[in-house]
Amino acid sequence: MSLVVQKFGGSSVADAKKIFNVAGRIVDAYNEGNDVVVVVSAMGDTTDDLIAKAKEINEKPSRREMDVLLSTGEQITISLLAMALEKMGYPVISLTGWQVPMITDSNNSKARLRTIKTARIMSELDKKKIVIVAGFQGVNELNDITTLGRGGSDTTAVALAAALKADVCEIYTDVDGVYTADPRKVKNAQKLNDISYDEMLELASLGANVLHNRSVELAKKYNVNMEVKSSFEKVDGTKVKEVRLVEKMLVRGVAKDDDVARISVIGIPDEPGKAYRVFDLLAKKNISVDIILQSIGRDNTKDISFTVCMDQLEDAVNIITENLDLLGAKEVKSRSDISKVSIVGAGMASNPGVAAKMFEALFDAQINIHMISTSEIKVSVLINEKNADRAVEVIHDKFFC
Amino acid sequence: MSLVVQKFGGSSVADAKKIFNVAGRIVDAYNEGNDVVVVVSAMGDTTDDLIAKAKEINEKPSRREMDVLLSTGEQITISLLAMALEKMGYPVISLTGWQVPMITDSNNSKARLRTIKTARIMSELDKKKIVIVAGFQGVNELNDITTLGRGGSDTTAVALAAALKADVCEIYTDVDGVYTADPRKVKNAQKLNDISYDEMLELASLGANVLHNRSVELAKKYNVNMEVKSSFEKVDGTKVKEVRLVEKMLVRGVAKDDDVARISVIGIPDEPGKAYRVFDLLAKKNISVDIILQSIGRDNTKDISFTVCMDQLEDAVNIITENLDLLGAKEVKSRSDISKVSIVGAGMASNPGVAAKMFEALFDAQINIHMISTSEIKVSVLINEKNADRAVEVIHDKFFC
Repeated sequence: MSLVVQKFGGSSVADAKKIFNVAGRIVDAYNEGNDVVVVVSAMGDTTDDLIAKAKEINEKPSRREMDVLLSTGEQITISLLAMALEKMGYPVISLTGWQVPMITDSNNSKARLRTIKTARIMSELDKKKIVIVAGFQGVNELNDITTLGRGGSDTTAVALAAALKADVCEIYTDVDGVYTADPRKVKNAQKLNDISYDEMLELASLGANVLHNRSVELAKKYNVNMEVKSSFEKVDGTKVKEVRLVEKMLVRGVAKDDDVARISVIGIPDEPGKAYRVFDLLAKKNISVDIILQSIGRDNTKDISFTVCMDQLEDAVNIITENLDLLGAKEVKSRSDISKVSIVGAGMASNPGVAAKMFEALFDAQINIHMISTSEIKVSVLINEKNADRAVEVIHDKFFC
Repeated sequence: MSLVVQKFGGSSVADAKKIFNVAGRIVDAYNEGNDVVVVVSAMGDTTDDLIAKAKEINEKPSRREMDVLLSTGEQITISLLAMALEKMGYPVISLTGWQVPMITDSNNSKARLRTIKTARIMSELDKKKIVIVAGFQGVNELNDITTLGRGGSDTTAVALAAALKADVCEIYTDVDGVYTADPRKVKNAQKLNDISYDEMLELASLGANVLHNRSVELAKKYNVNMEVKSSFEKVDGTKVKEVRLVEKMLVRGVAKDDDVARISVIGIPDEPGKAYRVFDLLAKKNISVDIILQSIGRDNTKDISFTVCMDQLEDAVNIITENLDLLGAKEVKSRSDISKVSIVGAGMASNPGVAAKMFEALFDAQINIHMISTSEIKVSVLINEKNADRAVEVIHDKFFC
């Protein structure tokens, strides 16, 4: 007998029929003799609808009240899913974030989990109940509702799996696993049987859209065995776990991320401390920077370019613009019609030919590269957004066909 | 400076515009220097929509999960109303039932309040915040969400007013006060400036639809000054409080209740203990009985007739039918095409002419009476539902014109 944590996203519970489908997957695991803890997101477009309701009243509501509002989304799902399981004759109980409790810090709308008290869940499992937990939400030490922000439900699931020492954390999604590229766009994409945390992390943060990187980081930290599976088809998924390096595993996948904008700070004096100033300003505004490139300009000045996600573009440009004098820089430029395309694979670092092969594929397709960034297990390039899908395809086929 | 509790029902917060209207009423009280605690219901049809969602999945969901679901309704309202007040520049905080906490027993879907811990609310008031509390909901000692059932938000408001020792508990509704009859149906209906708890209690339980009797009972018990006011018009409402008896105040209002069904148990042996058995069976099923009439039948048997509200009719008939042998009765009959029409007034008991005047009005209109019930301050008659509106009008005009 095992303890299984299952997570179902919003599209998997979008209506009554889908909720019963999910209930069927839960019952399968329960009937095999497992203890089952289920994490669910808000149904379909519920979160967007709630945000629209809020915006109708206040364009900039406090994050505390926004969390009170948004947390109702998952609360609706847990109760409806519990009712479906009751209807099927199974013992079940739903728990909100504060009922578990999932204790977080007080950073509303992007709270970090601090502690999960497992006593209530364990006691319900002892009674042979299926436990349904609201994803994405928690409670801070003042008893205020918090939400975890993007990828919150995946994070809830992995954190619960870690706290409960679950045997596996199954993440059910629209796709049936992790592919070498987006299977909706690249026809030769192949499903991977397994992938390492680090590789998944690069793929997740690079826009593969299967798992959120925060949940994978957590899984790696606590060594939680994850499995990405299809909500709708009963086929094997992709296991995310510590994978031993095998020589042939050079490139594991190609990913594309359109949610990226480039900012260039032009004409910074070529003196020590200037780069530090730029990124310190951004860090203080909680702006995450991805690729950074520094180039020597003319007249003893340099240019610093970096990428941020789209919804931080405006803030980033503003903070740099306000501090142009402090930085001694001439101007700020930005563009958002760009994409990041990346290849990921744990065997890459020791094989310099990999990056060259990627660049060759892009050259063959006459796609221009704006920036390049590499790590132990990935190579990313910034290219025009309009070329991105084609780039993924040509790079993918270069490595996998 | 006073402490004011304001309660706004679902139709008063049905959309963004109405929420801002409510926010305006709150701000008026706050700007006068009052501490303001606000109780709100779910917006418009939200509760009905949630119930429909549940029924789509499970016709008979557990009451625990139903409460998890329904409590999201008020949670949405409190956050949106708080956002409206933030938008207007006022300090505000929303609190769910469990955040207050409003501690109840574990009788899900019709829980009773046990204790209200006021520390959190008091500390927010000390910070000069407007406090918005979700009506209708609480939490039991196991940390499970409960709801208070019908009239729950009124009850929340009065209970909070009692616990906080508020100076007044203002109940905002569609109508601007308590009338001598339903002003939408009786053109001569007159607004009352004040009314006693007992009179209001009879009017509430008799279907006047302004305040729920549970909240009035609570107000009477803790001597909470209530005021029924219009959400939309700024006019004086009706004060509900201890009112000294004045000789001329004979009849205060005429009310109609269509939510009533009559059950007759026919041919019960005329022996001691039989009536007890009937009502003990009903009590064990938590069925509330209103008017009771016992008549001697033929052959040493008697008939017992009583009224219940419509949604308990089926249960009541079933339990009696199952126990016909135990009761030694012949059969059960029921009809639901009836209404209860009542006159209420604290001066009534000492004036026997009042009931006669009511019956005269009905006789003049050729309306037949099925059952009669009287108390210290009311006279109720059961008549055919199709005559009910006319009955209210003729009785009203007999007394008030």
